[in-house]
Formats: sequence, structure tokens, C-alpha cells
Amino acid sequence: MRPSAMIRTLYRHRHSPIVTELPTEQLQSAVRDPQARLWIDMQAPSAEEYALVLEQLYRFHPLAIEDVVSDVHVPKVDDYGSYLYLVVHTLGLGQERMAIETHEVDIFLGNSYLITIHDEPMPVIDKLWRTDYHQERGLARGPAILLYDLLDRQVDSYVPLLEEFEIQVEALGDAIFRQERDQDEVLLNDILTAKTSALRLRRILIPQRELMQRLARSDYEVIPADARIYFRDVYDHMVRLADLTDSMRDLVSSTIETHLALANNRMSEVMKVLTIISTIFIPLSFLAGVYGMNFEHMPELYWRWAYPAIWLVFLSVGAGMLLFFRRRQWL
Amino acid sequence: MRPSAMIRTLYRHRHSPIVTELPTEQLQSAVRDPQARLWIDMQAPSAEEYALVLEQLYRFHPLAIEDVVSDVHVPKVDDYGSYLYLVVHTLGLGQERMAIETHEVDIFLGNSYLITIHDEPMPVIDKLWRTDYHQERGLARGPAILLYDLLDRQVDSYVPLLEEFEIQVEALGDAIFRQERDQDEVLLNDILTAKTSALRLRRILIPQRELMQRLARSDYEVIPADARIYFRDVYDHMVRLADLTDSMRDLVSSTIETHLALANNRMSEVMKVLTIISTIFIPLSFLAGVYGMNFEHMPELYWRWAYPAIWLVFLSVGAGMLLFFRRRQWL
Amino acid sequence: MRPSAMIRTLYRHRHSPIVTELPTEQLQSAVRDPQARLWIDMQAPSAEEYALVLEQLYRFHPLAIEDVVSDVHVPKVDDYGSYLYLVVHTLGLGQERMAIETHEVDIFLGNSYLITIHDEPMPVIDKLWRTDYHQERGLARGPAILLYDLLDRQVDSYVPLLEEFEIQVEALGDAIFRQERDQDEVLLNDILTAKTSALRLRRILIPQRELMQRLARSDYEVIPADARIYFRDVYDHMVRLADLTDSMRDLVSSTIETHLALANNRMSEVMKVLTIISTIFIPLSFLAGVYGMNFEHMPELYWRWAYPAIWLVFLSVGAGMLLFFRRRQWL
Amino acid sequence: MRPSAMIRTLYRHRHSPIVTELPTEQLQSAVRDPQARLWIDMQAPSAEEYALVLEQLYRFHPLAIEDVVSDVHVPKVDDYGSYLYLVVHTLGLGQERMAIETHEVDIFLGNSYLITIHDEPMPVIDKLWRTDYHQERGLARGPAILLYDLLDRQVDSYVPLLEEFEIQVEALGDAIFRQERDQDEVLLNDILTAKTSALRLRRILIPQRELMQRLARSDYEVIPADARIYFRDVYDHMVRLADLTDSMRDLVSSTIETHLALANNRMSEVMKVLTIISTIFIPLSFLAGVYGMNFEHMPELYWRWAYPAIWLVFLSVGAGMLLFFRRRQWL
Amino acid sequence: MRPSAMIRTLYRHRHSPIVTELPTEQLQSAVRDPQARLWIDMQAPSAEEYALVLEQLYRFHPLAIEDVVSDVHVPKVDDYGSYLYLVVHTLGLGQERMAIETHEVDIFLGNSYLITIHDEPMPVIDKLWRTDYHQERGLARGPAILLYDLLDRQVDSYVPLLEEFEIQVEALGDAIFRQERDQDEVLLNDILTAKTSALRLRRILIPQRELMQRLARSDYEVIPADARIYFRDVYDHMVRLADLTDSMRDLVSSTIETHLALANNRMSEVMKVLTIISTIFIPLSFLAGVYGMNFEHMPELYWRWAYPAIWLVFLSVGAGMLLFFRRRQWL
Ligand SMILES: [Mg+2]
Ligand SMILES: [Mg+2]
Ligand SMILES: [Mg+2]
Ligand SMILES: [Mg+2]
Ligand SMILES: [Mg+2]
Ligand SMILES: [Mg+2]
Ligand SMILES: [Mg+2]
Ligand SMILES: [Mg+2]
Ligand SMILES: [Mg+2]
Ligand SMILES: [Mg+2]
Ligand SMILES: [Mg+2]
Ligand SMILES: [Mg+2]
Ligand SMILES: [Mg+2]
Ligand SMILES: [Mg+2]
Ligand SMILES: [Mg+2]
Ligand SMILES: [Mg+2]
Ligand SMILES: [Mg+2]
Ligand SMILES: [Mg+2]
Ligand SMILES: [Mg+2]
Ligand SMILES: [Mg+2]
Ligand SMILES: [Mg+2]
Ligand SMILES: [Mg+2]
Ligand SMILES: [Mg+2]
Ligand SMILES: [Mg+2]
Ligand SMILES: [Mg+2]
Ligand SMILES: [Mg+2]
Ligand SMILES: [Mg+2]
Ligand SMILES: [Mg+2]
Ligand SMILES: [Mg+2]
Ligand SMILES: [Mg+2]
Ligand SMILES: [Mg+2]
Repeated sequence: MRPSAMIRTLYRHRHSPIVTELPTEQLQSAVRDPQARLWIDMQAPSAEEYALVLEQLYRFHPLAIEDVVSDVHVPKVDDYGSYLYLVVHTLGLGQERMAIETHEVDIFLGNSYLITIHDEPMPVIDKLWRTDYHQERGLARGPAILLYDLLDRQVDSYVPLLEEFEIQVEALGDAIFRQERDQDEVLLNDILTAKTSALRLRRILIPQRELMQRLARSDYEVIPADARIYFRDVYDHMVRLADLTDSMRDLVSSTIETHLALANNRMSEVMKVLTIISTIFIPLSFLAGVYGMNFEHMPELYWRWAYPAIWLVFLSVGAGMLLFFRRRQWL
Repeated sequence: MRPSAMIRTLYRHRHSPIVTELPTEQLQSAVRDPQARLWIDMQAPSAEEYALVLEQLYRFHPLAIEDVVSDVHVPKVDDYGSYLYLVVHTLGLGQERMAIETHEVDIFLGNSYLITIHDEPMPVIDKLWRTDYHQERGLARGPAILLYDLLDRQVDSYVPLLEEFEIQVEALGDAIFRQERDQDEVLLNDILTAKTSALRLRRILIPQRELMQRLARSDYEVIPADARIYFRDVYDHMVRLADLTDSMRDLVSSTIETHLALANNRMSEVMKVLTIISTIFIPLSFLAGVYGMNFEHMPELYWRWAYPAIWLVFLSVGAGMLLFFRRRQWL
Repeated sequence: MRPSAMIRTLYRHRHSPIVTELPTEQLQSAVRDPQARLWIDMQAPSAEEYALVLEQLYRFHPLAIEDVVSDVHVPKVDDYGSYLYLVVHTLGLGQERMAIETHEVDIFLGNSYLITIHDEPMPVIDKLWRTDYHQERGLARGPAILLYDLLDRQVDSYVPLLEEFEIQVEALGDAIFRQERDQDEVLLNDILTAKTSALRLRRILIPQRELMQRLARSDYEVIPADARIYFRDVYDHMVRLADLTDSMRDLVSSTIETHLALANNRMSEVMKVLTIISTIFIPLSFLAGVYGMNFEHMPELYWRWAYPAIWLVFLSVGAGMLLFFRRRQWL
Repeated sequence: MRPSAMIRTLYRHRHSPIVTELPTEQLQSAVRDPQARLWIDMQAPSAEEYALVLEQLYRFHPLAIEDVVSDVHVPKVDDYGSYLYLVVHTLGLGQERMAIETHEVDIFLGNSYLITIHDEPMPVIDKLWRTDYHQERGLARGPAILLYDLLDRQVDSYVPLLEEFEIQVEALGDAIFRQERDQDEVLLNDILTAKTSALRLRRILIPQRELMQRLARSDYEVIPADARIYFRDVYDHMVRLADLTDSMRDLVSSTIETHLALANNRMSEVMKVLTIISTIFIPLSFLAGVYGMNFEHMPELYWRWAYPAIWLVFLSVGAGMLLFFRRRQWL
Repeated sequence: MRPSAMIRTLYRHRHSPIVTELPTEQLQSAVRDPQARLWIDMQAPSAEEYALVLEQLYRFHPLAIEDVVSDVHVPKVDDYGSYLYLVVHTLGLGQERMAIETHEVDIFLGNSYLITIHDEPMPVIDKLWRTDYHQERGLARGPAILLYDLLDRQVDSYVPLLEEFEIQVEALGDAIFRQERDQDEVLLNDILTAKTSALRLRRILIPQRELMQRLARSDYEVIPADARIYFRDVYDHMVRLADLTDSMRDLVSSTIETHLALANNRMSEVMKVLTIISTIFIPLSFLAGVYGMNFEHMPELYWRWAYPAIWLVFLSVGAGMLLFFRRRQWL
């Protein structure tokens, strides 16, 4: 199901605590107003909405607009002087068990505006979308700090997801030691999905971490010097998350290795049972077969104690085999 | 089948919107004309054509010409001051399933000309080879931006190919979980080809990505400062493609690993069936064999209830074995 | 069981050798006193204690305080000019065999104070928490050298732990060559835990090593130039420990590999026993079965030397098989 | 067989096109002549010849001479101001199939001389050792360009060797899919040798590539600025060769992996045959054994239709088993 | 057995060729003598000897002394201005086959003295410990060049050891192809030890190589500018050795891989023998069992040619099976 398209705007005068939600018709005059601070959020916009906001109102560079419209997949920041264009990603649980998906968010950051563009609903934006929040904080502290607010909460929202994922990976590591019938293919499927997820996370989180470092260190026009320490804070959290992802990838790899070793062990156990039983009874069966032959001249058949004697042989051979297996540590 | 050789030229006067396709005879005077802008495209040229264009008309450096004639295999850019020599690669589907091939393209970029040399037909060049395109765009914006046009479309043309490849790799990942008779060797062959393709892609895309970064960052005489941002755009797309290639390589590796684990599991299942059947019936057969012996003095043979009793023993031993297997989780 | 919460302070006048333990009530005036040198140690503090010390008394940056309260997981140092904020980790044995755990310690280092914050009791701090120690050393030499004292002893305390761990890993490497029944799953569990521990150690020790290098090299306001060589000393020890961790990771990996090879070998041995016994006796059993058939017209049954002759056949076939196996090096 | 020792010299006056081969007796005066340009080639020289040329005539640094006499194994360039000392390697086919060997060449490059020292005959040197070649090219363009000539041809001579090697590796990749009896150990030996060769190539080609880059970039006294572009050309070729080597290493690794997976598959097929046959006939044999027992009181034995009935049972059980295997996709 | 402790001193006046071995009592005055050049060698010194030389006579930094007394494990160089403190390692054969051990050596290098400290006897030092050697070389050229002498010979002494090790690793690579009974566990143990040794070598040689590079490049007060080229020479030799170590690590890894593949192949051979024999004789045994049943009404039993006919059946089934196996390439 396609999420409903939406375009909405928060407006705050630079020197007034009053924040209002602006109808799209008034957007044009607000963009022209040098005292306005705006946050425009576009969810699954149409081609016309793209054209209106990005081309007509803000006249962003065609290359940036092209990147907004198409999906770029890798986090990045482009500096166009009077504004920054960012691509970041949010995380979400996928359909399959152990699957994690990522969704792209496009961001424009100017001196007086923040524009966020995404296809899926973003709970973190919804939480910040309250006019009272922007009276003292949010837009009140400028678009750069508002962007920090957004990214910081976004990153914080990954933590429970990743911790849940870590718990599930550790559960997989325990499940392989429990021997449950018909669970092996399910487990292998989960492990493969988990590995794919861990690798995908790594590929998103590591460039996103570098992006935060660039925001914290570089000399961008639209990020005031005293805002940089905040992006450094987000950077630290990304370091932690990337680290957690590395742990999970290694844990999944070790789990696959151990699963193989366990499967090997269990196959060995199966083979031992087969070998022990076969090795004991196949020679005995041969012996019984010998005395089931119908030759006329088989003197043993007529001996008085032959039958008890053959049982003695059976038992000795069997006991000897058992001893042999015990000496080899199979029993 | 060798593609037909071809050499063709687009001509545009620096200050006139009229673009014409030039016969080869007029090439010499056009090259000497300081107001001319030229795009020369050579497909599978002969030694004489090489000599004419590269040596006589343009007098390129012998080392560059040697690289054009022989295949160099690795993307690179050489700066000869008044012109750049580039080697880039295009992608194409190979003969075998899951196979991807690469073809080399040699490019000379001067202030007033672009020369493209390739052995295979290139659909992207054919699409740009229309005189009307170069009235406002293409040659009208200079050879550097024309090169961007070319590279950008070239890179865009990889995307469907890579996405199709990704879909096929994921299909392989699903196919190994379906147990289809006699498909295993085919699957393994596909997986091996896919891995080879992913590794080959990586080796082409990563130096090509670095090449784009050099075009975007370095201070080449023939690339105007305001054209650099365009090569940066191509660079971003290459980053994404290289990233996709990494994903596929990892996915293929995980698929091989999982295939091994699955094969192991299935062998285990086979062994269990063998072991269960053997372990139950081999001892019973021995017992039957015992009472098939022809000893004269076997008192049990003459007991009234011996036959039903032996069946009781058979059934108990069999049931005991089944219980043993169930306790070991084999059933 | 939650360790008991605790907050305690050592006070030393800059020019007096007398060191006293300060009650929390006098903390405020001591913090304001420009001649005071303080070491505040907080164990599992409550939210109010956090607020009192970090916000009211010292007014640390909110981002640093946020990091103290939440767990950050990766060692780091943040320079806030008049103070440093550090996150380091201590090591401890975990519950499971071969498990190693890490605990986070938060540290503030100012020109006249050291603040240490941790959830678990820290024996190294307890050992330095003696007023006489700080008369000539410890606080007497300033908070930076006191921090070195602390870190140096902390790092020294890892050595026996890591050496014990190394001995256990080597013991695992020997244990896999001893063939003890039912020990394999236990061994595999230990090896997997050891690998996880080695990887976790690496992820803590390597950033902690870099942290020490930054303390030794960077130009922090609160670290006097002549104190840097001491952090260089701790850095060297960290290099050694990180190196030891690498050794262990490699050793564990080789152990897993060798375990697999050994398991393979042993399975081969099992298969050989089964194959030798089956290959000898299954054909013989067939032969015995043939002469157990009840056909009326089987001339051999009535020959005089048939029974000894068939035994000759049995023995020849058996001996031939044994020769075949010896030639194949199975026996 | 030791190649015959040899020392030979080409002499060219700086301003005269006449090139002559100099007898060793005239070497001393030629070395002292400021207008002379010399190329001295030493093959498997004796200790006296080393002493004569390197110590007495040229007085090279003792450390360089020590490196010439002993084998150093890793390509390098040492700058002694008025001369360069280089160690490079040539490639050759080894004795075993898939084996590639490397031989060391020591080179001194001065402003007016080139000295090449090697133990094995070098066809590339023999090809350039013609007096007429040095009238216009070779020594005529100075020792640095002569060295380029030598290295360029040397590197070009690797290409057919490496391409042949690549073809053989690909042939191995196909051979593992053909199931030829008794070929497996031969194949494994070839694969192991190929991997060793690929790794050895990598270790020679990569430092040799870096060496070329240093010649192309650094500011050596004996390499004229306009000669650097030539070493850049050799560098490009080395990049391509190193890249080819990486491909082969990866291809060999994938081949080993696939070989293991295939071997696994084939073992599975063997096990299935065994299991199917055993699972069908072992229970039937038991049943036959039951009715081969000699109990007096076995009523079934005397029933009129017992024998046809038991055949019905035999066939039903067999058919049931076949159905079971077909449902499991084993048939 | 603990090696005997020893402390000995070589003395040379700066401007006199006479070198004498100094009794420990005269050490103090010699250390104070500005014209003296000293080489002090301490083998397994006691705590008092440490205190005497390092603390009282030379007053080295406490951190350096602490590093001498404790074992640091990783090669390093610390610059204390008027002296350098170095930790290097020597190699030796270990107890187990394929085991290589490393021993730590501590070195102080001043403008007029060299101090070497080690626990094990060092043959290289013993060889240089001759008064006549230091008349023209050794101490005559200053402590820095003496240190080079020592390190160069030390490194040269590794070469035969590493070459012997390489030969043994290659012998392992051949041994796995010979199929010798009961050798497999011994081989695996050797391979595991060899891998551990190769990894340990790498971890010592690579930092030691970097150390040499620092001595060759850095601007240390106690190393004269013209001595640096000598350390560059040692560096080259270390590069070669580190490279050799990499080769061995890769060779050992490939050997393990190949061993696994071979073991797999041989298990396959075993399984095929079992399967061929079982598949032929188990159905035949069933058939023999059928005609061993005692049913009253089995018409075949009384046919005239039944017995020859059943043999025909036996032989046809056996031949059919053999054909089947040959078609599958098992025979
Ligand atoms: Mg987008
Ligand atoms: Mg989008
Ligand atoms: Mg935060
Ligand atoms: Mg946060
Ligand atoms: Mg566990
Ligand atoms: Mg899946
Ligand atoms: Mg934070
Ligand atoms: Mg070309
Ligand atoms: Mg071409
Ligand atoms: Mg584009
Ligand atoms: Mg595009
Ligand atoms: Mg799927
Ligand atoms: Mg773009
Ligand atoms: Mg914390
Ligand atoms: Mg905490
Ligand atoms: Mg210390
Ligand atoms: Mg210490
Ligand atoms: Mg051992
Ligand atoms: Mg130390
Ligand atoms: Mg040499
Ligand atoms: Mg030589
Ligand atoms: Mg060339
Ligand atoms: Mg060439
Ligand atoms: Mg193929
Ligand atoms: Mg070239
Ligand atoms: Mg020491
Ligand atoms: Mg020591
Ligand atoms: Mg030397
Ligand atoms: Mg030497
Ligand atoms: Mg060999
Ligand atoms: Mg040397």
C-alpha cells in the first residue's frame, strides 16, 4: 500500500515565538520573506510538488533535484554554498524474520529553512511536528540545530531496533545447539537473512557515520560554528552503532561456522551408531548364515553342544566389538 | 561476428547552432579550424584510420596511441596538458547465464574536440548522435560537458543491468532452498559465474569511480571549473554502483556458504534414513538367521509358542530402536 | 544484584600534604575553592547525584552529561577546553567459561579535579583511595598524573586476565586433539565463546589504544606537556595487549579450522571400519545364503568336500579383501 | 645446469652514432671517458668480476654491492645520488604444471651508464643487444630511456605468459565439473600450485608496480624530467598485470570452493544410492529370513497361497520405499 | 634451566685503538669519562644489577626501566633525547616441531655507549665480543654503527632459520598428498603449529621492520646522519623477511584447505567401495534368502533348472550393477 502523499510547512518569524502551520498557497510569500524560518516536510511528493518546491520556490541545482527524484542509495552531503543537500537513511524491520530495511531521506538545509523529503512516513518527524516545540527549541534555534534534533532522535530510534536484532542473533547462536527436528532449514534461512541484514546495515551506517563527521568538522556556510559540536555528538552515536553492526556480522559468521561444526558432529554420531550396529551384527549374521547352509556333510550340525557353543561365539564376538569401540572412545 | 568498422564526425561552429555530419575528407581542414568543435567517433577502426586521426591530424603522444591500439584493461586518465586521454569501460551481458562482460572505450578530450574509440557498437553514443541534440546541448556546451553527457548516460545504462543481476543473484539464494533433482551442478555453475562477474565488476567500477573523482577534483586544463560539479554527479552514481557490486559479492558468498550448509543437512537426512533402517533390521535379520540354522540340537525350535515369541522379540527390539531414535530427535 | 551506590571525595590543598575524605555537604565549597584539588568517585550514582555533581557543581556540557548517563560502548575522548571527558572500559571475567565482559567508566579531567563514574565496583580505584598515597604521589602530582596512575594500574590489571585467557585458549587447542566422548559440543561452545570474547576485546582495546595515543600526542589544556610521556607508556602497554588479542583471535580461528579437520579425519576412520567389515562379510553372507537355498537340484550340496571347500572360499575372499584394504593404506 | 657466465659491454660516444662491443680490457678507460655511454651486462658473474666492475671501476656503495651479491627477493630502488640501484624481477614458467617462477635482476643506472646483472639468460636483453639498435634509439637516447626500453619490453613479455596462465586457470575451473576418475588428486595439486603461483606473482608485481610509480614521480638526478612519462607508461602496464593477478587469485579461490561443493554433491549422490538400495532390501531380507526359520510350529509355512502372498508383500514394501524416495526428491 | 647471569663491559677510548674488557668495579668511573666509549652487555641480570646500571650509573627514565624489567612483547623505539630505548626480538626454534619462538632484547643507545639486555644467551653478541674487532670497526665507528652491526648480523641469522622453516612447510604440502596411515593427526598438529609460528613471526617482524624504518628516517640525536643509510639496509632485509613470512602463512593456509579437500576425496573413495559392494550383494542376498524360505508350496524349488537359472540371475544383476557404476564413473 502506497503511503498517502503529503506536503506541510511550519513557519516561524525569526524574532517571534509564534509558530504556525502554513497552507501551501502561502508558501511562496514565506520563502521570499527574509525574516521567515521554515520547515517543509514532503512525504511521497508528486512530480508537480517536486517541481513547485525544489525548482520554482528554491531553484535548487538540477543535479541535486535529480538525486532527490531518483534513489541514490548511499548517504552523502553536497555543499552548494547557500544550502546543503543531504541523503540519509532510516532503518525499519523488514517482512522476513531477521530482515532489516533502509529507507532514503533527502534533506535541504539552508540558513532559514529545512526541507525533508521521504517516501515512507517518519515517526521521528511526526514527533517534532508540534508548533509549541518550536517556540523555544526546534526552529527557534535555527535550521541547523533543528536538523541535529532530527538526526539525533533518528539515530536514537535505531538503538532499540539494533538491540532487538542483537538479541535475536544471540538467540540464533543458542538455537543451533538445541537439536530440534526440521528446524535446521529455518535456522539457516534466518542466519542467511541476518547476515544479509548485518552487511546492509554496515553499508548504510558507515557512510552515514562519515557524513556526520563531515558535518561536525567541515566549514559549511549554513552550519554555525557552535552547532558543530552537536553533529559530533551524533557522530559518536553512529560510531557506536557501526561498532554494534560489526559485532553482529562477526557473531553471525561465527554462528554459521559453529553450525557447520555441530552438523558435522551430529553426522558423526549418526555414522557411529550405524557402524557399531553393522560391525557387530553383520559378521554374526554371516556366521548364522553359514550354519543355515544345507550341505549334507557338515559335521558341526550334529554335535551335541554345537548350538550353545555358537551362542558363546556370538556373544564373544559381540563383546569383543563393544570393547573395541569403547577403546576407540565411540561409546 | 566482427562489428562493422566506422568513422564519423559531428561538426559545430563555436558561434553557430548549425551542426553537420562531416565526411572524412573534410576532417583535416576542420581540425585546423580554430572555431570548430568536433566529435569524432571511431568504431573498430583500421590501422590506417588510427594513423590518420591520432597521428597525422592530432599528433597525440605515441604512448597514448599505443594504449589506444592495445587493450589496457584498467580505467585511467592521463593528462597531456592540451588534451586528456581516458580509458573507461562499458558493461554488457555475457554469453553464459550470470556472466557480465566489460568492453574498453578510449577517449581523447581537447578544448575543441571529443574523440571516442571503441570496438563494439555503443547504444549510448548512437542516441546522442543527432545533429539537433547539439544545437542547444551537447557540443553547444563544449566537449567537457558533452563527455559528461556521455558518461552520465553510460552509467545510467548500467543500473537496469545491475538490478537485473541483483534479482538473479537473489533468485539463486532462493533456489538453493528448493530441492530440485539434478539442479545442483547447474546452480553451482551459476553461483561460480555470478561470483566471477561480481569480482570483475568490482575491479572495473572501483577504478572508474576513482577516475570520476579525479575529473571532479583535479585542475585539468580542458575541464572548465564549472564542469567539475557534473563529474562529481557521475562519481556519486559510481559510488552507488560500486556499493551495489559489493552487496552482490557478499550475497553470492553467503549463498555459497548456505548452499554448503544445506547440502550437509540433506546428507545428514540421508544418513539418518540409512542408519534407522539398518539399525532396526540388521539385528533382527541376525536373530532370524539364528533360527534358520540347521543344528540338530536346538530345543527352542520345537517349543509350542516359540514362533509367536520370536515375533514378540522382533517387535520389541524394533519398537525399542524407534524409541531410541525418537529420544535422539532423529524422528 | 545491583552494587551499592556510593559517592566519595578526596580533598587536597594545592600546597599542603594533608589529604582528607570530604563529606558530600562540603563538596560545593571545595569545588569553588581555587586552591583545592579533588578526586570525586561516583559508583552507580542516582539521577539526583548526577544532577548535583555534573550539572550544578561543574556545569558540564549537556552532551557530555547525556553520554555519562547513557552507555556509549566505544572508548573516546572529548575536549571541552577546560576539561576532558573520557569513556574507557575495564575488563572482567563473564559468567560463561571463556567469556570476557567489559564495563564502561566515565571520566572528567580538569586542571584541579578528577571525576570517575562507574556502575560496577573498581578494585583499582579502591587501591588508590588512601589519603596517605596522595600526600607525595596521586593528587600531589596533579589530576593528570593521577589519571595516568589509574589507567596504568587498570591496564596492568588486564594482563593476568588476558594471560589466563591465553592459557585457556591454548588448552582448547590441545583438548581438540584428545578424543573425549561427549566433550565435543562443550568444546565447540567454549570455542565460540572464546572467539566472541576475542572479538569483543579487540573492539574495546583498539579504540582505547588510540585514545591513549591521543592523550600522549595532542595538545590538551588540562594535560601538562611533561605528563604526556606517561600516557605514551600506557599506550605501549595497550599496543601489547591489542597484539595479544590479535594472537588469540587467530589462535581461536586456527583451532576451529583444525577441529573441523580432525572431526573429518575421525569420521573417515569410522567410515573405514564400517566399510571394511561390510565389504568383507556382505559378499560372504550372500554366499552362505546361496547354499541355504532349498532348491531340490543343487548338486554341490551333496559333494563330499563341499563344506570345507566353501570355508576355503570364505577365507580366501576375506583375506583378499584384507589385502585390498592394506594396499589402499586403510589398515 | 648453470648458465654460462658472461660479461659484455656496449660503447657509444655521446655525439657519434657508432656503437661498438667493447672487450673487457678496454672497460677501464671507457669508464673514465666523460663522453662515453656504456651498457654493461653481467650474466652469472664470478666474485672477481663483481669486484672489478662494482668495486674497482664504479666504486658503488658497499651496501648496494652486498645486495647485488646476495638475493634480496623484493623489488626496490635505492637512490645513491649519482646513480640508482634497482632490484626488479623477471617471470618464467616453473617445472611443475601451473608453476610460475621469478628471477632477480640487479640494475645500476647512472648518467652515462646502465649496468644489468642477472643469473639466468634474459631474452629481452639479447634482443636489444644489437649495435645498430643503439645508433638512433637505445644508448642514443641515454641510459634512462634505454632502461625504459628494457623494462617496457620485459613487462610486455609477461603478458603472453600471464594470459596463458589465465587460460589454464579457467580450464581448471571447467575440469572440476567434468567427472573423470582418478583426476581429482591431480586437479587438487594443480589448483594448489596455481594458488601458490598467483600469490607469488602478486608479491612480486605489486612492489614492482610501486617501483615504477616512484621512477615516474620522484625527482631522481639520473632520470631526466622528460623520461618520467615513459616510466608512467610501464607503471600503467604493471597496474594491469597486478589486476590480472588479483583476478586469477580470486578465480583459483572460487575454484577450490566450488570443487569442495561439487565433491560434497557427488558424495551425496553416492550415499543416496547406498541408502536407497539398503533401505529397500534390508527389511525384505529380514522378512525372507523370518520364513527361513526352522521352527516346528509356523502355520504360515503350510498355507496354500503363502508364497505368492509374501511376494506381494515384498513388492508392496519395495514400491512403497520407492515412492517415499521419490517424494523426498531423491529419485 | 636458567642461563647464567652475566654483566660485562667493553671499553674504548675515543682516540685510541686499544679496547679492554672492564671489570664492573671500574664501570662507574668509565661512565663519567667523557672520552670513553662503552658497550655493556647484561644477560639475565638481577634486580641489583638493573638498579646499578640503569638507575645509578645512567639514571634512565623510570618508564624505560620499567619496560626493561617487564616484558613488553612488541618491538618499539622510544626517544629520550640523549638516548634511545629500543625493544627488538630474536628468533629461535621452539621445542615442538614447526614451532618458532621469539626472545626480547632491550637496548639503550647513547652518544658514547650501547647497552644490550637479554635473558637468553645471544650468539650474535658473543661473536662481536672480541677486543680486536673494535679496534677498527665496532666501537671504533661509534655506538650507532655498532648497533647496526649487531642488528644486521642478527637479521642475517634469521635467514637460515626462516629458509629451513619454509622448506619444512613445503614438505608438509607434499606430505598431505602421500597417504600414510596414522600420520594425519601428526600432520594436522604440525600444520597448526606452523600456522601459529607464521602468525607469531609476522607480529614480530612487521613492527620490527617499521622500527628499522624509523631509525633510517627519523632525526634522532644519537644516530649520525651518515649512519641512517645502514639502518635502511637492515630495513630492506626485514622487508624481505616479512615478505617470506607472508608467503609461509599463505602456504600454510592453502595446505590446510588442500588437506581438507583431499580428506574429502578419500572419504568419497571409501564410501564408493562400501556402496558398490553393498549395492551389488544386498539385493542378491535377498534373493538367496527368498529361496531359503521354508514355504511348503514354492514351485520353483522343484524345477529342474531352477538352481542354474538363479545363478544366471545373480550374475546378471551383479553385472548390471557394475555397468551402472562404470557409467557413473565410479569404477
Ligand atoms: Mg532520493
Ligand atoms: Mg525518494
Ligand atoms: Mg543526543
Ligand atoms: Mg542521544
Ligand atoms: Mg552461548
Ligand atoms: Mg531468504
Ligand atoms: Mg552523545
Ligand atoms: Mg585501448
Ligand atoms: Mg580497443
Ligand atoms: Mg545524472
Ligand atoms: Mg543520471
Ligand atoms: Mg528470499
Ligand atoms: Mg546525481
Ligand atoms: Mg556512560
Ligand atoms: Mg554508566
Ligand atoms: Mg607503567
Ligand atoms: Mg605498567
Ligand atoms: Mg600443540
Ligand atoms: Mg612502559
Ligand atoms: Mg641480488
Ligand atoms: Mg643475483
Ligand atoms: Mg609500451
Ligand atoms: Mg608496452
Ligand atoms: Mg564456466
Ligand atoms: Mg602504455
Ligand atoms: Mg623488557
Ligand atoms: Mg627481559
Ligand atoms: Mg646487511
Ligand atoms: Mg649481511
Ligand atoms: Mg607440490
Ligand atoms: Mg642490503
